[in-house]
Amino acid sequence: MRTIGVVGGMGPAAAADFYARVVAAHCVLRDQDHPPCIMYSATQVPDRTAFLLENGADPTPELVASVNLVEAAGADFIAIPCNSAHAFLASMRAAVSIPILDMIALVSAEVARVVPQARCVGVLAASGSVKVGLYDKPLKKHGLVPLYPDFEVQDEIMAAIKDVKAGGASEISDQRLIAAAKHLCDKGADSLIMGCTEVPLALAAEDSPVVAIDGNQTLVDTTLRLSLRQFDFEEILYAIR
Amino acid sequence: MRTIGVVGGMGPAAAADFYARVVAAHCVLRDQDHPPCIMYSATQVPDRTAFLLENGADPTPELVASVNLVEAAGADFIAIPCNSAHAFLASMRAAVSIPILDMIALVSAEVARVVPQARCVGVLAASGSVKVGLYDKPLKKHGLVPLYPDFEVQDEIMAAIKDVKAGGASEISDQRLIAAAKHLCDKGADSLIMGCTEVPLALAAEDSPVVAIDGNQTLVDTTLRLSLRQFDFEEILYAIR
Repeated sequence: MRTIGVVGGMGPAAAADFYARVVAAHCVLRDQDHPPCIMYSATQVPDRTAFLLENGADPTPELVASVNLVEAAGADFIAIPCNSAHAFLASMRAAVSIPILDMIALVSAEVARVVPQARCVGVLAASGSVKVGLYDKPLKKHGLVPLYPDFEVQDEIMAAIKDVKAGGASEISDQRLIAAAKHLCDKGADSLIMGCTEVPLALAAEDSPVVAIDGNQTLVDTTLRLSLRQFDFEEILYAIR
Repeated sequence: MRTIGVVGGMGPAAAADFYARVVAAHCVLRDQDHPPCIMYSATQVPDRTAFLLENGADPTPELVASVNLVEAAGADFIAIPCNSAHAFLASMRAAVSIPILDMIALVSAEVARVVPQARCVGVLAASGSVKVGLYDKPLKKHGLVPLYPDFEVQDEIMAAIKDVKAGGASEISDQRLIAAAKHLCDKGADSLIMGCTEVPLALAAEDSPVVAIDGNQTLVDTTLRLSLRQFDFEEILYAIR
């Protein structure tokens, strides 16, 4: 088995959820049949959204230090359960010699696979990811067009994400995200991406009017299958380069 | 904040649960207000119970390598959410220069604190921990006497623990542990220790006829408070030496 590396903590609840899902997705009898995992919950990484939107501190140095730490500790590849952090993927990849999974590319491919008739994909993401158009190119590769919420709805999504970070999902954050999902569908989305790791902690996929891809689960599934050698890096070059 | 080190994976679901609880126990607004954490889910460590009971492989070398890894990665102290692994605590401590929390000492102190009238403590633990009397001395320090189940009930507890490791708690594992808790109380236990990290994943404390200390939560609380510098190592010398 390959040793899983995780750079998480963005937020920490999403990292905990990520590893719990990796374990739950693998039904085996003994501890020893699970892949080893080195998870660094790097909570000190400056806020990605604050940097992308405003004049926040640059998270790049801490992100680079974090992937370095996980590589040095012995991971064979790295998963990062934080969509916004992928805005800094190139810098992180330049710093290590092991593959770092591109969650954004994986999730975009998953939409095309699960919803083959999709054209217009609603994106529920943090405002920084939206501003830099994180999903634009990866979706375009699959002939898909991203659809973003109106400003005031984007603010509601960001408020829900902050709610989840500040102590977990609540009825309020759930309702905010359900309303945002409906808004995107009203605007013409035929599918949705839950493109922030906090979103699936509050929004249940079944509460979306259209198929909503849980990006966390996509990353979990790929991570687990890679670690179990169910496929090789060469088979997902689009997500490791 | 102190960087938390976790050597887990024994089992992996307990490690995931441990970190999820550390995050949930700390209600703050921002990712950056959570302590950083380096968790090594060292699933490859040979089965502790198989070594303590039978002729299984010695887990000591892998345990030592695991604490070394977490120390080298930058942890300020180490928590190990696995009771049985504490049978090898001395070897692990000898290998590192940072403190390793003694979960067994912490849980024993917690029984005395929470149930001051306790005398006879029922121990729900893996059969290896029972065989080596892992809780005997730490409980005795508090004037407490451990009470163990009859052999056939111990086998039922071990079966429940294996169930949890093999895919999570079920109605069967729950019932086995509830019956074991009742059995210990019938034998005279005035309090219980859930002394295997898999036990609180199946047995709800409220299903015990007497106060049942969730050892996972005790370790979570101490870990979080240490990382937040709410107390210092000197104040819990009994649990770090």
